[in-house]
Amino acid sequence: MSSSETFQKAARRAPASDGSLIIPEPQPAPPEREAESLDVWGFRDTHFDVSENGHVIIRGNRYELSGKELPRFLPWVREVLEVNLDPREIHAPRYPTAIAEPTLSSELNDALRGFLSTGQIDTNGETRMRHGHGHTQEEMYAIKYTQLGRVPDVVVYPESEEQVAKLVETAKAHNATLVPYGGGTNVTDALRCFPNERRSIISVDMRRMNRILWIDRQNMLACIQAGAVGRHIMAELRKYGVTMGHEPDSVEFSTLGGWIATNASGMKKNKYGNIEDLVLDVNVATAAGTLERSSCSPRESVGMDLRRLIFGSEGTLGIVTSAIVKIFPLPEAQEYGSVLFPSFEAGFKFMYELTREATPPASVRLVDNLQFQFGLALKPKSGGLGKLKSRIERFFVTRVKGFQPDKMVACTLVFEGTREEVQEQQKAVYRIAIRHGGMKAGSENGRRGYQLTYSIAYIRDFLMNYYIIAESFETSVSWSDALALCDNVKRRLQKEYSDRNLPGKPFVTARVTQVYRTGVCIYFYFGFYYKGISNPQEIYLELENAARDEILNSGGSLSHHHGVGKLRRAFLPRIMSPTALQWKRDLKKTLDPGNLFGAGNQDLDIR
Amino acid sequence: MSSSETFQKAARRAPASDGSLIIPEPQPAPPEREAESLDVWGFRDTHFDVSENGHVIIRGNRYELSGKELPRFLPWVREVLEVNLDPREIHAPRYPTAIAEPTLSSELNDALRGFLSTGQIDTNGETRMRHGHGHTQEEMYAIKYTQLGRVPDVVVYPESEEQVAKLVETAKAHNATLVPYGGGTNVTDALRCFPNERRSIISVDMRRMNRILWIDRQNMLACIQAGAVGRHIMAELRKYGVTMGHEPDSVEFSTLGGWIATNASGMKKNKYGNIEDLVLDVNVATAAGTLERSSCSPRESVGMDLRRLIFGSEGTLGIVTSAIVKIFPLPEAQEYGSVLFPSFEAGFKFMYELTREATPPASVRLVDNLQFQFGLALKPKSGGLGKLKSRIERFFVTRVKGFQPDKMVACTLVFEGTREEVQEQQKAVYRIAIRHGGMKAGSENGRRGYQLTYSIAYIRDFLMNYYIIAESFETSVSWSDALALCDNVKRRLQKEYSDRNLPGKPFVTARVTQVYRTGVCIYFYFGFYYKGISNPQEIYLELENAARDEILNSGGSLSHHHGVGKLRRAFLPRIMSPTALQWKRDLKKTLDPGNLFGAGNQDLDIR
Repeated sequence: MSSSETFQKAARRAPASDGSLIIPEPQPAPPEREAESLDVWGFRDTHFDVSENGHVIIRGNRYELSGKELPRFLPWVREVLEVNLDPREIHAPRYPTAIAEPTLSSELNDALRGFLSTGQIDTNGETRMRHGHGHTQEEMYAIKYTQLGRVPDVVVYPESEEQVAKLVETAKAHNATLVPYGGGTNVTDALRCFPNERRSIISVDMRRMNRILWIDRQNMLACIQAGAVGRHIMAELRKYGVTMGHEPDSVEFSTLGGWIATNASGMKKNKYGNIEDLVLDVNVATAAGTLERSSCSPRESVGMDLRRLIFGSEGTLGIVTSAIVKIFPLPEAQEYGSVLFPSFEAGFKFMYELTREATPPASVRLVDNLQFQFGLALKPKSGGLGKLKSRIERFFVTRVKGFQPDKMVACTLVFEGTREEVQEQQKAVYRIAIRHGGMKAGSENGRRGYQLTYSIAYIRDFLMNYYIIAESFETSVSWSDALALCDNVKRRLQKEYSDRNLPGKPFVTARVTQVYRTGVCIYFYFGFYYKGISNPQEIYLELENAARDEILNSGGSLSHHHGVGKLRRAFLPRIMSPTALQWKRDLKKTLDPGNLFGAGNQDLDIR
Repeated sequence: MSSSETFQKAARRAPASDGSLIIPEPQPAPPEREAESLDVWGFRDTHFDVSENGHVIIRGNRYELSGKELPRFLPWVREVLEVNLDPREIHAPRYPTAIAEPTLSSELNDALRGFLSTGQIDTNGETRMRHGHGHTQEEMYAIKYTQLGRVPDVVVYPESEEQVAKLVETAKAHNATLVPYGGGTNVTDALRCFPNERRSIISVDMRRMNRILWIDRQNMLACIQAGAVGRHIMAELRKYGVTMGHEPDSVEFSTLGGWIATNASGMKKNKYGNIEDLVLDVNVATAAGTLERSSCSPRESVGMDLRRLIFGSEGTLGIVTSAIVKIFPLPEAQEYGSVLFPSFEAGFKFMYELTREATPPASVRLVDNLQFQFGLALKPKSGGLGKLKSRIERFFVTRVKGFQPDKMVACTLVFEGTREEVQEQQKAVYRIAIRHGGMKAGSENGRRGYQLTYSIAYIRDFLMNYYIIAESFETSVSWSDALALCDNVKRRLQKEYSDRNLPGKPFVTARVTQVYRTGVCIYFYFGFYYKGISNPQEIYLELENAARDEILNSGGSLSHHHGVGKLRRAFLPRIMSPTALQWKRDLKKTLDPGNLFGAGNQDLDIR
């Protein structure tokens, strides 16, 4: 019977002259200006610094704030942390700290060289170290001041599905373990190696598998290799008038494969959906072969969907090699907006009503008062008219409207769609905002708030040079529990901090970064001044764990979009029933009996 | 550390006097008028019949068409099938055909009676038979004319999660197998028992676990037991001004648990989403214990989401006992609509543009010409003004607009939302429709088309009495492949039919029932006259398999929302890579090593 014919991939339609099916050219090698730092976040051309005037400044010319002095920043930090931060007292990084020699047998080395070129294999110490961490504060502290410990023994750069499959075979044959590497932007210790891993650790860097294989404008789908970086996907799709719409904060560096493995969320998910909404199909290299489907349908009911297991698998089940994703026409209109509210509660209420009465715009975010001040402290020096305007504005907000500087908050908005849709949404949003005491604060402040996301990511590494350790963590929670959760977490961190007699005051701030009809994502920043403390990274972790305990007690989730990795795995037994945990372990044991994919996230380091 | 505290369910908020959290009363026992037939589809008070005038009539008074004669129907059937159907020639059903005696050891019987009351255990033959099938044509043919074979040995009606857990333990201890039963509406042989199953088969009928446990209007969530039937969920939620919005064609009879296990799709998914979009959390009784989570968040990234495996699991991994689902305010406005198009292609083009330029209304469906005629043939006799109006309408459509009766098609629409949203959508929809040659055909025709869904489900069993066998099957497919797929399937079925020298002509018709940005769901009806043929059910299956072969060759999926069951399992190797199939088998073997949940769907009858 025809039903028993064997599996084969359906043939793709041919590229069409009307542009409905396009096969883009491969990406050229990235230019020098896109080089990334090994020791800190981001592009090599950008970093925070202290200017000759003693002001904080962002070097380079990549971002809007680049090259501008931020004179308010240091005074504000001193005020908030209640410490006497002196920019001449530097906690000088000793990067690269100790890097272990690679454990790589000549047999394994020969086997790799059997199908990879010399340029596809790297045993350089700094490269290996970079592939053994993401961007948690402990990891960044370790590579600068202590040591990271075990790191991958070799980094390989496969260029095809076939080479990935060969890596699987080779690792099996030589008792090595494979750890997929996308953009290295995780904040969950997901890439961190186990000290007692005795096998050779092969880091599989997917960056050369970065092609957009096809763009189907009739069905609005694209097939993209997993190593493609967010900014490249955006730029490449833009050439053809389309977008994937997925913009996590890390979009400059993170990859499609990483998004899937982490179950990522994009800033514009209200319009485009989260990664699980955007991906229709995945190809995965597993210990047992390739997980794939013959064709890709809009929606199906064909039994248990194994592909769904790959979302959030964090490298423990296999390597995503490509995915078919939804695409959208580039929005006809894009508008930023911002609204000031007299209090976090008022802004929160506005967001709630927004999800009830209207279609929320592509992005809507609400910062608390401290984070609002943080944003102001990052405003460049303005003179002349700019200064006057800013003073008048402040006068109006605080005197005329009666907003209190230590209570007021800001909401930033991004609208995307047709001109008509955007206009309709703006009308609805501002109508609801004003009903909740909001005051329109202009598109420029909105745009600035949104763009700040990218440059702000560089600040943590800068501050560490001055004895400040900080990081973010997030949760998702129902509307009814959200405000109490914010309060509880802030109170708990302040108490734990003062209980330990640590210097000054901690910095704890929250923002609502995503809204759902059923709840929100809350994103916290937490940091403190650590001069005189020998193990700030350990204290930070202790405190973050206390915050997580408080989050779970307050009805929040273990993570909205960062994932579990190794950082949060101890909390899993609190959120999943013993049966659920057992299922996960059994499943890992069954699908990867040799623990070939030994990243060990989610407590899945099973052998 | 606090992270290692053990698992416990988060406490729910208390019911609130403002109605934000409600604990509804348990459902009363269903009244007699809700009794369902054992031998045919639907409520006992409703069936098709032939009136004294020789016209088809629907008995009862439940539906709009009930009690009305349909004089055009039989002549139309004769014309389409090109057969001399005589309503006096009856293929009299011999229901109930042979029912095997139950295999139930006294030990197992005693064990069940140890924790279930007498009223919770049923070994009646007809009850057992009903629990051994769904509504495929072969199953319905079998219970009327041949025999169904192996059926469950006992039907139990658990009333709590604890009782379900005890059933798991009891089945394990006594080497029995458990098959969950929801509404029994599947069309995939999902409930059919293996002839060689030597263990006692316990059918676990979930109908008494039908409570809405809580309704949270602040976060717009409800926790509902899995045995709750769609129409009850709708009615109960409506009392509190909310809806789940999930309305599969079977909503009168199918259950929440069944929807999840089948990965169901609702007619209004454009507004409310499919079942996987609606369900935030599930509790599942598995062979290893209860799969559950401590709390429910709007969206998470906490590793592999095992709960997602339950969607489409078709009873093979465990029994869904409850779920937390999204709810929505009852729409302020609901409007039906319909549009006539000169051809299926024109209507299809309209639907495509609709997904590009507008937000599609809650439901939009397009029938082909034959199905349009089918709808007309089901119009009750109208006299006087109604008749005149109908004649004038027909004149206008065919003479003035020039639509050809054998080419024209109809699109039915359901708009739901605020009054403003509905108005906006209507404007957009009709603007696009008219651009594609569409002609507004009124809300009455739309409402009728939509309501027909429920009464039409009774017709198949009626026709079988007159030697007509028929069924539906569906697929999902990209926009670019959809029209060719429809043509290919129709042509293939016609060819296979004539190759076999079967009587008259087959009835093959298609409709587009769901739209996505990336493609559509296409729903086929296929039937034929079988007088003089001894094995029509086998021929039907052969032909449906040929159609499925054609669907897969044309880029369609194995199923959009019906599932795989046993009916389509032979096709799985064509759509999934060997690794994917192996993963499924390994996973089943690991999570249910004794095949305690022995429904055996998707080829998962592994021991």
